[in-house]
Formats: sequence, C-alpha cells, structure tokens
Amino acid sequence: MATLKACSALVTGANQGLGLEMVKQLLEAHCSKVFAGCLDPDGTNSEALRELAKKHPSVITIIRLDADDPCSVKESAKKVGSLVGKNGLNLLVNNAAIVANGTVQTSSIEDMKNTFNTNVIGPLLITREFLPYLRTAAKASGTPGMSCNKAAVINISTLGGSLSRMPSVYEQFPVLPYCVSKAGLNMLTVLAAEELKADEILCMALHPGWVKTEMGGEKAPINTRQSVEGILSVIGSLTEKQHGGFLDYTGKTMPW
Amino acid sequence: MATLKACSALVTGANQGLGLEMVKQLLEAHCSKVFAGCLDPDGTNSEALRELAKKHPSVITIIRLDADDPCSVKESAKKVGSLVGKNGLNLLVNNAAIVANGTVQTSSIEDMKNTFNTNVIGPLLITREFLPYLRTAAKASGTPGMSCNKAAVINISTLGGSLSRMPSVYEQFPVLPYCVSKAGLNMLTVLAAEELKADEILCMALHPGWVKTEMGGEKAPINTRQSVEGILSVIGSLTEKQHGGFLDYTGKTMPW
Repeated sequence: MATLKACSALVTGANQGLGLEMVKQLLEAHCSKVFAGCLDPDGTNSEALRELAKKHPSVITIIRLDADDPCSVKESAKKVGSLVGKNGLNLLVNNAAIVANGTVQTSSIEDMKNTFNTNVIGPLLITREFLPYLRTAAKASGTPGMSCNKAAVINISTLGGSLSRMPSVYEQFPVLPYCVSKAGLNMLTVLAAEELKADEILCMALHPGWVKTEMGGEKAPINTRQSVEGILSVIGSLTEKQHGGFLDYTGKTMPW
Repeated sequence: MATLKACSALVTGANQGLGLEMVKQLLEAHCSKVFAGCLDPDGTNSEALRELAKKHPSVITIIRLDADDPCSVKESAKKVGSLVGKNGLNLLVNNAAIVANGTVQTSSIEDMKNTFNTNVIGPLLITREFLPYLRTAAKASGTPGMSCNKAAVINISTLGGSLSRMPSVYEQFPVLPYCVSKAGLNMLTVLAAEELKADEILCMALHPGWVKTEMGGEKAPINTRQSVEGILSVIGSLTEKQHGGFLDYTGKTMPW
C-alpha cells in the first residue's frame, strides 16, 4: 500500500462523513498540517471536528469555508496561504457536496441550481483561489513529475457522475440534479488537469464508493473508514499517469 | 440516406444558425408542422425566420420560448399542444444554447450560471413540459420500437461536452463554462433516455460538428447546411439502438 506523505492538505466539507474521516486519517498518516474546511465551524454539526482539532491543535486548523460564497473562499485561501508559507499547499480535496433527489419530471429548478453551485462552482472557485499555494508547493518540492505529496487537486466525484454507469442505477437512485452536477464536476476536473499540467499539479476525480454517510444512507456496503482508507491509498500512489483520470476508491478506473 | 418523416417538430433557438437551418430543411423534408421556438419572435435577429414563416404559414409556427423562464416554457408547451392535437409532437430538438469563454482561472460565476441555466435547465424544463405531447405521439404512432418519426428528444450537444475529447482542444477553445454545461446536458440526456424508455420516446445527444455560425466562428470547416443535412440524415435513421447515445452529424459515435 502506497502511503500519502503530503505535508499539508485542505479538505472541504470536513465536519462530517467522508470529510471528517479524511481529516482523521490524514492525521494518522502524519500529515503535518491539515486544514479542515467547513461551512459553520461553530455549529452543532461541527462538534466532532472541533473535538478532534482541540486534541491536535498543532496539526488541525478549522477553516470557515462556504463554497457558495466567493468572499468566503477568498478569505479561507488567504488564511491557509499565510499558514503554509513558503512550502505551499500540497493537497486540495474538494469533498464538500450536496445531493438532491429528482427526475426529468420532478427535479426542481432550485435543486438544479443549488447542486450546481455547491458541487461545481464551489470546486472551481476553491481550485482557483488555492492555486497560488498549490503552485508554491509544486515549485518547492524540487522533484519532477506529479504526486499528491507534491501538489494535487482531488475532486470527490461519484459513480453518479459517470455517463456510462449511472443510467443503470438511476431507477434505484433518482438523483438527477446531483448526477448532472457531478458530470459537470468531472468536466471541470479534466479541463483543470489540462490547464494545470504545466504547473505539475495533479488533478483527478475520485469515486469514494457507496458509503454509509448521511448522503449514502444505511444500506451502503462500506463505511467511511473503509472508503477513506481506500481513497488515501489510491491518492498516495498517484503519478502523472492518472492525471486527468477518474478512479474509484479501490484504484479501479471509472468510465466517463 | 434515411429520411426524416416526422409529422411535427419543435426546434428551439430557431431564429438563427443551426436552428434556422433546421427549420428550413424540415420544411424541405415535408414535415407538416414545424414549431420554431425563439426568445424574441419580434426582434431584429428573428427577421429571417419571420420571412420564412410568412412564406409557409401552414407549416411554420413561430413560438415565443425563453428556456430560462419556466412560465414561458409552460406557455409555449400549451400552445404547441393545442396545435398538434391528438397526433402529439413527434420531434423535440433542444438546440438553443449559449457559449461563454473562460478557464479555471478566468471563468466568471455569472457565465457558469448562465450557461448552466440555458444549456441544461432549459432543456430539462422543455423536455418536461412537452413530454405529454411526445407521449401522445408515441401512443398515436401505433408502431413498436423507437424513431424520430414516432417520438424523440434530440439534444444538440457538442464535442465540448465530451470528457475524453475536449481536453485535447481546450487550449484552442478555452470555453470551460460551455463545456461544463454540455457535460451536464449529456447526463440529462442519458437519464432522460432511461426515464422515457417505457414511453418509447427516443432520447440522444448529437454533436453538430464545428459549424460556421455566430457560435462556431468563420474558421469552422463546415457550414450550417452541411451540418443540418448530416443531422437530419442521422436522426432520420435512429432506432432504439441509439437510444441514450451520443453521435456526431455524420453518424459516428462520440465518446463520453
């Protein structure tokens, strides 16, 4: 199993589910700086994250980050930038996302817009604002090629964003607004990969599996620990070969 | 060359470019009712369409249709529904779209939202509101299987919506907001295909080629006539085998 040795990482949507588990496991992997982005650091649904951060104040920094608010994204980037200094930010995990149910016949315009804002425009703005610190990390690494230990943007996507795979499970999971937004996120990922190639910043999309979370529900076959163990193992072993790709948490290539 | 024998068709964005040419060629193909949807039927940029409609008043009906406005979509559907009566609507071509330039570093939030509204939410609402008349046509046809002569939704997509093809031309065409929206439209297409399968309404996405239009520019290798000749030939020969697929104007399968 490859190990992630990223010095600094930012995870969005870090107060619960996959995001919170990712913070825990990055801590276990001896990441030296973990920035835990969340919408409402003082809210009741951030309590577990606050507890964790209190126990590891030298590693975990909670960052207020509202992916829907350009000012909040800018501010969070400035804060993280000042804390990482000349080493830059090695790893950005765009994990924050919302889900919405609906079909062609029932999806509300509101749900279409909200999922798009949070799941696509959010990662776009976050990638853009944190780019200077990712570039700093890429330059500071002094090693050729690409890796998550150097500089990377990992977009947490889903099977629901796969044009070839989603139709067969649509009846079971009628979540059209979510799927449309994740197909958009996948496009953002491949274009970001193209755009950031010259900077040697690795970009890829990752399907975390169907996970027992608030979003995935109780019927899901794996828990957050299993999913994140897989994710960190996969991203720890990424090279420029997977740049612009779409993998699942076991390392298998996903079809677009 | 297969011929399109659709009795009734609605084309959105019909006042210019591909849409206008499609109205012309549907007329030449002896389509009995062509509904030409456009944003501003009385505007100066609808003059050519008005001229054409004046010459063929028994075939062409201009319909005010603002894809961004749910009320306008509902009203246009009601009007078309009353005009097609018990035969229903055979063919819906979601052609209206806007383009916006931008990269990860430069795309404006406004452009991201506007392209998504027009290019994804628009076709979603239009498909939904015209669905009763497409169902009527599917039932009225009395033939098994799927075809554009029976009942179909054709979404005009683009190579720019192809996750595997777009990255290699991104440097030449930095139109990220457009590409993200078209990947979303492709997802809408495959899910609509799944959802409308039982109604035997054919759904697919079509890449019209790179065409000399206001959107495609002067450098494009083909003109609107060539593109639409290809499109009508392709959609005239579609069966349930292409349901949920992505083809270009020559009939070649496009990769997602």
